[in-house]
Amino acid sequence: MTQAPVRILGIDPGSRSTGFGVIDLYGREAVYVASGCIKTIPKDELAGRIGIIVHHIGEIIDTYQPVQAAVEKVFVNVNPAATLMLGQARGAAVAALVLRDLPVYEYTALQVKQAVVGKGKAAKEQVQHMVVEMLKLSGTPQEDAADGLAVALTHALRYKTLSGQKSALNIKRGRLQSLS
Amino acid sequence: MTQAPVRILGIDPGSRSTGFGVIDLYGREAVYVASGCIKTIPKDELAGRIGIIVHHIGEIIDTYQPVQAAVEKVFVNVNPAATLMLGQARGAAVAALVLRDLPVYEYTALQVKQAVVGKGKAAKEQVQHMVVEMLKLSGTPQEDAADGLAVALTHALRYKTLSGQKSALNIKRGRLQSLS
Repeated sequence: MTQAPVRILGIDPGSRSTGFGVIDLYGREAVYVASGCIKTIPKDELAGRIGIIVHHIGEIIDTYQPVQAAVEKVFVNVNPAATLMLGQARGAAVAALVLRDLPVYEYTALQVKQAVVGKGKAAKEQVQHMVVEMLKLSGTPQEDAADGLAVALTHALRYKTLSGQKSALNIKRGRLQSLS
Repeated sequence: MTQAPVRILGIDPGSRSTGFGVIDLYGREAVYVASGCIKTIPKDELAGRIGIIVHHIGEIIDTYQPVQAAVEKVFVNVNPAATLMLGQARGAAVAALVLRDLPVYEYTALQVKQAVVGKGKAAKEQVQHMVVEMLKLSGTPQEDAADGLAVALTHALRYKTLSGQKSALNIKRGRLQSLS
């Protein structure tokens, strides 16, 4: 590995749980760094829930020092109150990223599934399975953590395409270490 | 005025414009400090829009040093995409408040209208008019700025009730100075 890695933080915001995944991109190779999820308590007040998200994402950035961030475009729920809470969680997550001057890239769930599984209609379990395969993980990350890693991998594939390199990723074995 | 004032920041989040108002509460008297609105460009990317909100609210807090914050509970729109954007703007605004350790109080539009106009079905113009009357302003603040001041005044009335004092506010004449 002659190149310095590009460290990518992937975020999958949710109203109750925000998944995250950190990977290093060494030229054509992606290596697992960390993943986990940030849980908020639905009955807590909004400020408390927003505080948990923004402080934890800040901590993750301080710990792992990513240079790029990828965020999943959230699903617009049929329930307006749920959509509002999802929006609030996502706004707080993006605020934490921009406050630390990270460039933010957005990908729809469809783009993530197509990039990771190869088809847009993939089930959650297939995303989890492919993340384990692609990063050669020794364990299966929790669903939201896998979604965080999946959006980071989506960006890695796009980033490589954007930078004119081959888009096929070579992925190094990584040890699964969950932050939470 | 023997007491140190309680400085309150009121925020009315919106998907395109976030109104704010700052007032000082001296015992039973409320004095206008500042108001304005933070506008984002709808065609800009989310990270840019979130950045404008979170940086500007941070700047307002650093400039005016409020000790309490009141945020209007947003209207859940029938359009899910609009509700999501409203949620994102609100999440970013609350993130900026909690990152500076401000206690956050929430009031519904109904509570704000009842507190300021005296009835829950008041029009926007009535809120504007009553804010001018209550703070004895020399000019009429822009609609979103008036909503920011209205939510700050709502909290002031509640705060006084909570602290066991008379809830009738005596409001000092203030000069209208818009930050933006």
